[in-house]
Amino acid sequence: MSIAEQSADLPTLEQQMQAIGAGARTASLALAQASAETKNKALTAAATALRDQRPAILAANAEDMAEAEGRLSKAMLDRLKLTDERVEAMATGVDEIAALADPVGDVIASWERPNGLKISRVRVPLGVIGIIYESRPNVTADAGALCLKSGNAAILRGGSESFRSSSAIHAALVAGLEAAGLPAAAIQRLPTRDRAAVGLMLKMADSIDIIVPRGGRSLIERVQAESRIPVIAHLDGNCHVYVDAGAGLEMARQLTVNAKLRRTGICGAAETLLVDAAVAGSHLGPIVNDLLEAGCEVRGDAATQAVDPRVVAAGEADWDTEYLDAIIAVKVVDGVDAAIAHIREHGSQHTDCIVTDEAAAAERFLNRVDSAIVLHNASTQYADGGEFGMGAEIGISTNRLHARGPVGVEQLTSYKYVVRGDGQCRP
Amino acid sequence: MSIAEQSADLPTLEQQMQAIGAGARTASLALAQASAETKNKALTAAATALRDQRPAILAANAEDMAEAEGRLSKAMLDRLKLTDERVEAMATGVDEIAALADPVGDVIASWERPNGLKISRVRVPLGVIGIIYESRPNVTADAGALCLKSGNAAILRGGSESFRSSSAIHAALVAGLEAAGLPAAAIQRLPTRDRAAVGLMLKMADSIDIIVPRGGRSLIERVQAESRIPVIAHLDGNCHVYVDAGAGLEMARQLTVNAKLRRTGICGAAETLLVDAAVAGSHLGPIVNDLLEAGCEVRGDAATQAVDPRVVAAGEADWDTEYLDAIIAVKVVDGVDAAIAHIREHGSQHTDCIVTDEAAAAERFLNRVDSAIVLHNASTQYADGGEFGMGAEIGISTNRLHARGPVGVEQLTSYKYVVRGDGQCRP
Repeated sequence: MSIAEQSADLPTLEQQMQAIGAGARTASLALAQASAETKNKALTAAATALRDQRPAILAANAEDMAEAEGRLSKAMLDRLKLTDERVEAMATGVDEIAALADPVGDVIASWERPNGLKISRVRVPLGVIGIIYESRPNVTADAGALCLKSGNAAILRGGSESFRSSSAIHAALVAGLEAAGLPAAAIQRLPTRDRAAVGLMLKMADSIDIIVPRGGRSLIERVQAESRIPVIAHLDGNCHVYVDAGAGLEMARQLTVNAKLRRTGICGAAETLLVDAAVAGSHLGPIVNDLLEAGCEVRGDAATQAVDPRVVAAGEADWDTEYLDAIIAVKVVDGVDAAIAHIREHGSQHTDCIVTDEAAAAERFLNRVDSAIVLHNASTQYADGGEFGMGAEIGISTNRLHARGPVGVEQLTSYKYVVRGDGQCRP
Repeated sequence: MSIAEQSADLPTLEQQMQAIGAGARTASLALAQASAETKNKALTAAATALRDQRPAILAANAEDMAEAEGRLSKAMLDRLKLTDERVEAMATGVDEIAALADPVGDVIASWERPNGLKISRVRVPLGVIGIIYESRPNVTADAGALCLKSGNAAILRGGSESFRSSSAIHAALVAGLEAAGLPAAAIQRLPTRDRAAVGLMLKMADSIDIIVPRGGRSLIERVQAESRIPVIAHLDGNCHVYVDAGAGLEMARQLTVNAKLRRTGICGAAETLLVDAAVAGSHLGPIVNDLLEAGCEVRGDAATQAVDPRVVAAGEADWDTEYLDAIIAVKVVDGVDAAIAHIREHGSQHTDCIVTDEAAAAERFLNRVDSAIVLHNASTQYADGGEFGMGAEIGISTNRLHARGPVGVEQLTSYKYVVRGDGQCRP
């Protein structure tokens, strides 16, 4: 019986989902108590299994690719495709997660009260994490490993295009769990491509503690609208580079080109350049020329169009657009306060940068721009958990609650208060 | 025109709500930048205004009381009533909040990367906090002051019974804001008793960052079900005291009576007593007798009924009930693991306590009971931000995300990453 047939009958899907949820909850209790050694043993064994099972993983991926051929865009096909190198990169990623410090049990703070009570705040896992993602099959390994490291059970729902690839990768993770004596249900994936399963998953508030969607805007908006479970979401990264009056020309040129063009498809890529009118005469032309020469389309306001005939006119929508492409919007503004005001109006509170040698302007910008990441004289492309030294990340949160910015193993935890007394009764 | 008339026309209410939201958002920008001195000046001036305006506050409260007489229960009337002492207690509470450390701008962590980037994680306000509460008018002062201290704008929606009292208290807070040159819109209250306003408020995700409901279960469930804004909620406190085989009798007796009876109406009050079978013979009788003598109804399993004829039979529902009254459910269990299992099945992950002199049993309980607060040899009645040394609290969160346990000024903040470089471009 095919998967589609198995899940065609909704009551069965509901029962399947309930069984998955109950299994995850039970597994989460074991995981929360698992030692760092045990979890690392499972991760190391999973990395080995990914390497050992590479032929099976590639064969499964070839089937996914064959089915997707002609139905997905070239970019989507590239995301779906696995190679020897990509499987090795996944295994290396899992090894790196094993090497991270275990956040569980960390004493975040401790103090003693005048009445002798000793209070400590101790990191504990969140519980069960549901992850809903799109085509890239490597998310199966990343997300499963991050949840395991942080002591959480995971329920993974990958894109239907990568169903077979994810299944093969998941098998390697389960092999790792079993090698360490941890329950296989610690990392489960939905055994169906049925989209109704996502709707059910988003309502399983009794068995899932948090939902992490990874993918495009439509996926994230659907999850936010439907979920009865708290969501850690990553929405737009409409990132800005502001070149202040105090910016050196060379640094401004290099940072802008790097922020925009190093990789255009990542959330930390710059989308709008703001240039202080005070240095527009000296800085704007060379920066715009660099961008154009590097193959970037430049959409500018009148002042920017005046410096180069290749600049096209920016419309109002450009200030609000996350291109994720070799296109940049450019505007001349009157000083740091005007830059801050523009970013407040049009930014997405993700990542924004000021280039300047003036400490006062830098501090004003860092303090007043209310984004998850604010940078002074550094490329917005550093918006990444790995670059922050946090190890692998499950995404970058644009929430203000719980986790903001890169979400690594520490952000996948909660805490509890442990209070030790010697018989204190409250007066 | 009366308030009821003003809000009878729904489009007008929507416009009112939008204006309140926009005002709060603008005010939040000023508050986020306000110095500790300015915020404290506003708080101190508000405390003074509460004292100065006591006659007006009491007169407004008398009107509320007159309207509520005969319509509310005696307990509700008592919550609504203000006296000289209660107004002074409010003012003192605001002074105490002024004396707390300012969380905004705290550097939570900072580190340097091999490439020279200096990264710090800095505490920032959440933004705009919506607080929905029931009859007690003092919440207006507490919640307004806590939001102000933590740099957040507040939108307050008190119970309709306390409408005039809250209005008078709010006027004192606004006087404080104005004395410090802060925008009056930093603390707003809904100028209507119309319940439809709550529904609108819960959908204002653009202008409110977080909702804190304070009140009974039905209020909190309504807010959780309807809100499109993240909620910090406080649900049941079905708290347990477990008397282990290693417990000294005297401590077990004193702690149990204190945990149950010091105040029965607070969320940290014990609701179920579990006694290890190994010491049931020696400990159960005296503890049950203490409870009964102190006027507590005891609902026990068969073993507990056997020790005292005054014990009534517990039904299955008793293990899941938060009495908030002088009633306790009592059960004999087989050791610490059975106690942990009972708490997992019936507890509400709020506050649970073990009484024992055995370190191993204590650590097992503290580690495996997954509650916001776990205590060893200390009364569950200590579940309180003030008792934890955190200062005033806006409530105790039973969420796992963001804030767990007491929610004080620190828990009303988010953070951002500030990255300082000298021209780093990402390779």
